[in-house]
Amino acid sequence: MLPAASQPDDAIRLTYRIETAGDPERLAAKIASDQSTGTFVALPGETPELKARVAARVAGYRELPPVATAAWPDGAIAGARYRAGEADIDFPLDAIGTDLAALMTIAVGGASAIKGFSGFRVTGLRLPPAFAAAYPGPQFGVAGTRRLTGVQDRPVIGSIVKPALGLRPHETAALVRDLVAAEVDFIKDDEKLMSPAYSPLAERVAAIMPIIRDGEQKTGRKVMYAFNISSDDPDQMLRNHDMVADAGGNAAVICLNAVGFGGLRFLRKRSRLALHAHRAGWDAMTRHPSLGLDFSVYQQFWRLLGIDQFQINGIRVKYWEPDDSFVRSFAAVTTPMFSPADCCMPVVGSGQWGGQAPDTFARTGRTTDLLYLCGGGIVSHPGGPAAGVKAVQQAWEATVAGVDLDVYARQHTELAQSIAFFGASDAAA
Amino acid sequence: MLPAASQPDDAIRLTYRIETAGDPERLAAKIASDQSTGTFVALPGETPELKARVAARVAGYRELPPVATAAWPDGAIAGARYRAGEADIDFPLDAIGTDLAALMTIAVGGASAIKGFSGFRVTGLRLPPAFAAAYPGPQFGVAGTRRLTGVQDRPVIGSIVKPALGLRPHETAALVRDLVAAEVDFIKDDEKLMSPAYSPLAERVAAIMPIIRDGEQKTGRKVMYAFNISSDDPDQMLRNHDMVADAGGNAAVICLNAVGFGGLRFLRKRSRLALHAHRAGWDAMTRHPSLGLDFSVYQQFWRLLGIDQFQINGIRVKYWEPDDSFVRSFAAVTTPMFSPADCCMPVVGSGQWGGQAPDTFARTGRTTDLLYLCGGGIVSHPGGPAAGVKAVQQAWEATVAGVDLDVYARQHTELAQSIAFFGASDAAA
Repeated sequence: MLPAASQPDDAIRLTYRIETAGDPERLAAKIASDQSTGTFVALPGETPELKARVAARVAGYRELPPVATAAWPDGAIAGARYRAGEADIDFPLDAIGTDLAALMTIAVGGASAIKGFSGFRVTGLRLPPAFAAAYPGPQFGVAGTRRLTGVQDRPVIGSIVKPALGLRPHETAALVRDLVAAEVDFIKDDEKLMSPAYSPLAERVAAIMPIIRDGEQKTGRKVMYAFNISSDDPDQMLRNHDMVADAGGNAAVICLNAVGFGGLRFLRKRSRLALHAHRAGWDAMTRHPSLGLDFSVYQQFWRLLGIDQFQINGIRVKYWEPDDSFVRSFAAVTTPMFSPADCCMPVVGSGQWGGQAPDTFARTGRTTDLLYLCGGGIVSHPGGPAAGVKAVQQAWEATVAGVDLDVYARQHTELAQSIAFFGASDAAA
Repeated sequence: MLPAASQPDDAIRLTYRIETAGDPERLAAKIASDQSTGTFVALPGETPELKARVAARVAGYRELPPVATAAWPDGAIAGARYRAGEADIDFPLDAIGTDLAALMTIAVGGASAIKGFSGFRVTGLRLPPAFAAAYPGPQFGVAGTRRLTGVQDRPVIGSIVKPALGLRPHETAALVRDLVAAEVDFIKDDEKLMSPAYSPLAERVAAIMPIIRDGEQKTGRKVMYAFNISSDDPDQMLRNHDMVADAGGNAAVICLNAVGFGGLRFLRKRSRLALHAHRAGWDAMTRHPSLGLDFSVYQQFWRLLGIDQFQINGIRVKYWEPDDSFVRSFAAVTTPMFSPADCCMPVVGSGQWGGQAPDTFARTGRTTDLLYLCGGGIVSHPGGPAAGVKAVQQAWEATVAGVDLDVYARQHTELAQSIAFFGASDAAA
């Protein structure tokens, strides 16, 4: 047990969960060595002076309870028990620099290849202030999302056109018309809908933006529509961006793992849109508690690179993720790294309708600074989308006022209808 | 059991290993539905016609032996046995298009979030010919690497400056001078060395390229030096690329997972260099046999995007990876997707010296089309780097001739020295 030393201003601190049939503290020392100066044979050029210049060091170590089963089956040893420990390792900023490609390669990616682990997970990342200066961070964030949508003092209420895939642009536009008439604040393309043959992005923009602009003429508020502009090609993504921005759009869906650091970094420098992140693929990196990496680590990279709105599931979702994990994700994206301006607007979605409002509010610090995204939860309301939007707004009014939803529903028809319709299963999409 | 239907020319075929306490065949159908037209509530716009347009379908299913332990601990159910099966799912090309961001989001990333799996792995990907036209693929590949290095009829022999990190540019250059004098064919920066304060890329290029050019003057052959130009910023990566190319360099190290699809796609369009891939971070995606994704899937994305040389470990490496896994990786990058021109030069490295040549040759189809990368295995040879290079060449001569290394070593001093020095541990770096 080594109490964690305080983190120097010129160090990057990584925390790893190490599981092994051997000695986790020894493996922590091996990470520090292998990922900075280590090599297997003493070499002529390797002097103590250069080692000191770039050496990482173990700054803290905490033993965790042993585990019975190796996380990686090929790390199993017959009859073994596995020790687990959490190690803090400080990497000198001078040795890595502020490029996230170097940080990722040295301190996240490379370490997982080391022999001897039966499990390995990156559980913590604390960056020194130099990163604040090196990256743009969110351009809009919470304040910008509120300003652009004109929504204050309550959650921004969003929806998704459903079905997610298969509609032609004019079919999507017809549903968007209903949602705009319903006075929803935000609409987005599904993360899976980019620019397929049956719905090219250009045609979708051409069909949808006139409806958004008409709505603005009528109500004075412009519905924020996030078009999915993701592409593996940054040049194409920028053309997509320009098409949306030039048509008066103000937001875009970005599939983080599919565009990569390079795609987002390139776009953010040139972006006029609020960037709405979808993390498709993240589940596979995080679900095993002894492997992969924590969301708290993952999200820091994308925030530095410029994400404004971060989709993070919600309470009682239709996916595998437990509520506690969602609550930690919400805390992660709303906790400043260096300043409040680097926080993202949390986007709460998946199977949501008004029914999850009370638990969402109670478990996320009683804030209304969120984008509350209901697909089927609005569109499938028995009274139609307008009733669906009203029902969600009513659920949040009740929640903030501390009134039980069932009580509030006595005076609020739309909420009552949604409780009757969705309440049985407590799941929408 | 559903025998696999033949893959239509307009379909993308994914193969998934599904593990569940429930019915894997039912979950296969759920993937096909959720990732194309599925939604939880019947919606007004959802007609059979649009479903048919984009619906994915299960094209084959094979039951695998049940497993006793859930791969994801939170997928475990007390007393349960877990069924496993492999499902082929065809996604219509019209529904996804050829953008790898869409393919990744729909067919790889998104599917992992579905409820009900206790394990989920992407094990196969077969793309239709449309992808061959949509992507550049390797610019140099095997033939280009041979042409640029001037090496035919034997492996290209490479080395890495060691220690990987901590040397200033003039210190690196001094070691490069030794390696060039030793007539190595290829040298690379460590994947962890990008452009830190103590060794900015510009200074490294300025210190090293005159030595490479001098070597070319003397021998008529230019040593291929792969500078690590990786950056999270495509604009920066392109500046790095131009700096290397303008100084007469002909290769670059790219850390795939750190630059992302966007970074590589942007660079490849503008590239004059042979692109040498490092997959740092891949281990965490692939090591659990029931989670993540197979290398055979992973590498297809990067080959389409334009990688020329693919680093894939080797026999008896210093990392966790077993030999069988390396052998499969070698087969993957050397098997045409659409034509032989889309194959990469396999880069065999990690703890290599001449000692692994016979097993490497025997297990990879008796080919010499590879880049054989020895760091310590050359630099730490007791006779110095020149003897190190000779020893590796001799090991491959013996291997191709079918002569036992120990026998060949009787007439070849450098090989004999390396066997005495490295043979005891059979590991170098």
